[in-house]
Amino acid sequence: MTGLEADLKSVEAAIRPGFALGGGPATRPRGTRGFLPRGESLAVAVERLGDDLDHFRREEGLDTVIVVNVASTEPPTELSRDHERLDLFRRVIQRDRRALVTPSMVYAYAALERGFPYVNFTPSVGVAVAALQELGLKHHVPFYGSDGKTGETLVKTVLAPMFRYRNLEVLSWEGFNILGGGDGRVLADPRHKRSKIRSKSGVLPSALGYTPHSGVGIEYVPSLGNWKTAWDFIHFRGFLGTKMSVQFIWQGCDSILAAPLVLDLVRLTEFALRQGEAGLMTHLACFFKEPLGVSVQAFTDQFRLLTDYVARHTKNGRKSPRAR
Amino acid sequence: MTGLEADLKSVEAAIRPGFALGGGPATRPRGTRGFLPRGESLAVAVERLGDDLDHFRREEGLDTVIVVNVASTEPPTELSRDHERLDLFRRVIQRDRRALVTPSMVYAYAALERGFPYVNFTPSVGVAVAALQELGLKHHVPFYGSDGKTGETLVKTVLAPMFRYRNLEVLSWEGFNILGGGDGRVLADPRHKRSKIRSKSGVLPSALGYTPHSGVGIEYVPSLGNWKTAWDFIHFRGFLGTKMSVQFIWQGCDSILAAPLVLDLVRLTEFALRQGEAGLMTHLACFFKEPLGVSVQAFTDQFRLLTDYVARHTKNGRKSPRAR
Amino acid sequence: MTGLEADLKSVEAAIRPGFALGGGPATRPRGTRGFLPRGESLAVAVERLGDDLDHFRREEGLDTVIVVNVASTEPPTELSRDHERLDLFRRVIQRDRRALVTPSMVYAYAALERGFPYVNFTPSVGVAVAALQELGLKHHVPFYGSDGKTGETLVKTVLAPMFRYRNLEVLSWEGFNILGGGDGRVLADPRHKRSKIRSKSGVLPSALGYTPHSGVGIEYVPSLGNWKTAWDFIHFRGFLGTKMSVQFIWQGCDSILAAPLVLDLVRLTEFALRQGEAGLMTHLACFFKEPLGVSVQAFTDQFRLLTDYVARHTKNGRKSPRAR
Amino acid sequence: MTGLEADLKSVEAAIRPGFALGGGPATRPRGTRGFLPRGESLAVAVERLGDDLDHFRREEGLDTVIVVNVASTEPPTELSRDHERLDLFRRVIQRDRRALVTPSMVYAYAALERGFPYVNFTPSVGVAVAALQELGLKHHVPFYGSDGKTGETLVKTVLAPMFRYRNLEVLSWEGFNILGGGDGRVLADPRHKRSKIRSKSGVLPSALGYTPHSGVGIEYVPSLGNWKTAWDFIHFRGFLGTKMSVQFIWQGCDSILAAPLVLDLVRLTEFALRQGEAGLMTHLACFFKEPLGVSVQAFTDQFRLLTDYVARHTKNGRKSPRAR
Repeated sequence: MTGLEADLKSVEAAIRPGFALGGGPATRPRGTRGFLPRGESLAVAVERLGDDLDHFRREEGLDTVIVVNVASTEPPTELSRDHERLDLFRRVIQRDRRALVTPSMVYAYAALERGFPYVNFTPSVGVAVAALQELGLKHHVPFYGSDGKTGETLVKTVLAPMFRYRNLEVLSWEGFNILGGGDGRVLADPRHKRSKIRSKSGVLPSALGYTPHSGVGIEYVPSLGNWKTAWDFIHFRGFLGTKMSVQFIWQGCDSILAAPLVLDLVRLTEFALRQGEAGLMTHLACFFKEPLGVSVQAFTDQFRLLTDYVARHTKNGRKSPRAR
Repeated sequence: MTGLEADLKSVEAAIRPGFALGGGPATRPRGTRGFLPRGESLAVAVERLGDDLDHFRREEGLDTVIVVNVASTEPPTELSRDHERLDLFRRVIQRDRRALVTPSMVYAYAALERGFPYVNFTPSVGVAVAALQELGLKHHVPFYGSDGKTGETLVKTVLAPMFRYRNLEVLSWEGFNILGGGDGRVLADPRHKRSKIRSKSGVLPSALGYTPHSGVGIEYVPSLGNWKTAWDFIHFRGFLGTKMSVQFIWQGCDSILAAPLVLDLVRLTEFALRQGEAGLMTHLACFFKEPLGVSVQAFTDQFRLLTDYVARHTKNGRKSPRAR
Repeated sequence: MTGLEADLKSVEAAIRPGFALGGGPATRPRGTRGFLPRGESLAVAVERLGDDLDHFRREEGLDTVIVVNVASTEPPTELSRDHERLDLFRRVIQRDRRALVTPSMVYAYAALERGFPYVNFTPSVGVAVAALQELGLKHHVPFYGSDGKTGETLVKTVLAPMFRYRNLEVLSWEGFNILGGGDGRVLADPRHKRSKIRSKSGVLPSALGYTPHSGVGIEYVPSLGNWKTAWDFIHFRGFLGTKMSVQFIWQGCDSILAAPLVLDLVRLTEFALRQGEAGLMTHLACFFKEPLGVSVQAFTDQFRLLTDYVARHTKNGRKSPRAR
Repeated sequence: MTGLEADLKSVEAAIRPGFALGGGPATRPRGTRGFLPRGESLAVAVERLGDDLDHFRREEGLDTVIVVNVASTEPPTELSRDHERLDLFRRVIQRDRRALVTPSMVYAYAALERGFPYVNFTPSVGVAVAALQELGLKHHVPFYGSDGKTGETLVKTVLAPMFRYRNLEVLSWEGFNILGGGDGRVLADPRHKRSKIRSKSGVLPSALGYTPHSGVGIEYVPSLGNWKTAWDFIHFRGFLGTKMSVQFIWQGCDSILAAPLVLDLVRLTEFALRQGEAGLMTHLACFFKEPLGVSVQAFTDQFRLLTDYVARHTKNGRKSPRAR
């Protein structure tokens, strides 16, 4: 721990004021107002964040910066026509129409505009906005998301195909998550929780091929700290209509599960960038609950998208990324 | 149920005295001696069982008979040189050396000798004996086993690859099964239980790529009847050495889970026979805990062996089996 | 089952139109309107229900009728001054002020007014209304409630004292219930659910002596039919601040658990009536989630109230109830 | 932790060579032979251990020493006539008949002979030997045991009475414990495990009033360290023969659960000694899995033995123990 602490302290200076306006009620902790530049317009914020990224790249002597969104989950955003085309979305920024913009969009915009890849590890909207994907493609930058698949949903996408392959009909799949920490505190707000529940419950229909009765509960239990416990009850029907069940109980530490995925995403994004690839990195679907542009939800099938990608790059004789 | 009952009654007449000598202590219920022909030699038993199969085929006007072993689990058998070659094994039968032979071998021998496919749905040795595989190949007959993968082990081979793909090290995988019924009663005998535990615990090393601490408990709980409850506790280590866990509780009815697998195995075996195929049907690995001749244990990979087989047969323009 | 069916058919004729107005949105199934007398005033309904009870008593040649409320849970009712005194509540009935009255009150009123004991097996308000208790006392009738303690809450009040006796601090107690059937369908409505959650979550503070973080979830899962599964996660702190946990999973059939309690309540109420007792039957606290007039929630302590009552009656040489 | 470490270091000097002969195969770690005085007779060992206790008392300026057995579980001992009377048991010691004596007896003998109370927190035989109880009474010393009730068995004796009070028939109660640490390592030896299983499974018949099918499994899972996970499955039958179930999963740290019980036992034993009490301290039954001289197993009833004891001492105006 002492080693980690020193490492973390050394990058403390690189931390800059962020952007949180429109991030939802639960992400407005006391003192935030003082931290954020007052009265800043969207256009100015985008410039400022882009400058910070550029500055960081130069200071650290890096080729590029990979931007990964691990901020608190935003409430769901209703997307309008203005989100569909880059020119319209640019106008939204210029005219400072804040009601249409969330922090995950602002960061994605700032990153992609400067040619930096953007990965959305949260259920916030981020690069799911078509206009931002257009921006990424324009600058020929790879990007991806949404929402890192770390625990309960991972098990879901691993188990669900079993029922399909064995022709066991899932009648109900009920999940109940309890967690503490900052993540739990934010998700205790029903508006924020809605984003998470959507990304968690969306996986079953695709993995099973039909939509069973299903529910996802999330409750904030402060005593659990960074740990999460999830209980899932799966009711299924077999031969001669017999009802059976399987339950699982997942007890994991979310940040510990997320960290190595974030590291791998950064490495794989950097590799894609170096290969000259751009756009949705669909080969990274297995990392996400809502993999953009991929309808496959069965985990093993998603993993094959990654191994196929690796195989393609190895066969083509391209250089694999140097160890670092 | 009434419909089923009538169907079952109508085939009652086809039931013939069996062979149970050497099947282990727990398969000797009272009255068995009266049921089995007294003092019958192995050679005579093999002939008698073969005649019964032939008779059944003729009576029912069938092309063939698929023999599926769903009898009680035998204790593990130590295989000797005599089991390795058909000529030596034939001599074992002729010389009536009963200590070397179990019912599953006798049935496999009787079936294959008459050119009938044999599928071993139990952890008994059956067609795992090399001499019997030689016999099956000689008569150009398909055969396979061992031990139908219906419940806890199915979940194991579905979940285990997840840990591998996410680079989460499984430290311990402890399973505890409680079940009633005739199956539970036989497995309550430690000698019989040993066969089951071997087939249940063998799947992890191959599915994970290493051998974690693991245990499999099986206890007979009469009140459960035909139902089984399995509790599995999986302890694993993630980033920075953090220990986490996942548990699952499986509550299923074994016969209900087994029946459709047996039906599908019969159909797929009949298809293979009709295609002129012979030997180990490795494309059926996903049905078994110990798939003969297949080292892959990850369920999805096993399932692909089946879908690839189907694809091959479809592409080649061969006739698919008629619906029956 | 056939025996039961005949018994139930034989009492079918005794079933009369009921009263459901103000019972909440989820208790208004299609066709109800046709079933309930149209445009009936509260005063008339009370008379009608009382007449039905009297008629039933005479027809069956009984000494009395014990009225037990097992109807669907009503949404919580806000009690006003009008509910506090019998004279005011009578005026509410006379003036047909329906907004202040729920079915559980109407039935309690009808029963007690005719001198029939009333037991409320649901979380609906019923005889918790002070004016109705005044009515019961006026007619010298025993009454009690509320909400039969059949499953998850029973285990809660059995387990909670353990933590107190061992000085283990409960940090969080999270319960999650899934159930099907008519009960589940009604509780799926958030307004109805609120009554249930209140009666389920109220037990901990009294049983523990302090109020831990706690949550109670209830979800309607149609495939479960009459069965309920409850998962409870209890996080507690021991020596040197070490956090530990215990979870339980309850899988029961609510009607099967409720039926014998209802039978015993009827017997014990009839016994109390015959002993000339009246008012709150606090010795029946162990049957209820919200025992009226009893603050003790530890199950064993509640059970002692019953055994003490039995001991008192046995010692006093009073006649025990005849077997029937 | 640093504070604790210093405290523990300060008493290190008081640690003396022990006695482990006959303690079972799993308590013979490498090097033990060098640690134990070679060729020491039982009589000499008893003297030596008694001298060590006396020395410790004097050095620390204490009135007495309370001896608590928290050593590894010994295999079960068959008790003979020689264990029944003090004079015979003394002869066993004098004649150095080691096959009849285990470490827990030797320590109990050494302590009681010097007038020091002895508490057995393990399932080893200790003061359950009649001859040793005779010795304790002769010196007018309080003593008690056996086997601290810290986790799974505690929950068992809390839950079991619920089934009795609700007239739900327990059909089967299956428990499965996995644990690491030194305790787990010793219990991995089937001979040692037998003692533990006996003390764990003995509680149900008394708590329920009949003997259901039950099993207790214990497995050593090194990765769990000092933590234990227990899964209990309770199958029960309710109204109309309906089978239902409840499961619990206990995840606790055994040493953390044991430590405060040991502290309380020391305080309560010191109090009893100061009150001039001697013999079995049956009011401490709630601390033990096998409370000597008490047949009550329902936890709440056991706890009342303690509160009644406290009430007696308070009412009698005796001095309560000074805070220390």
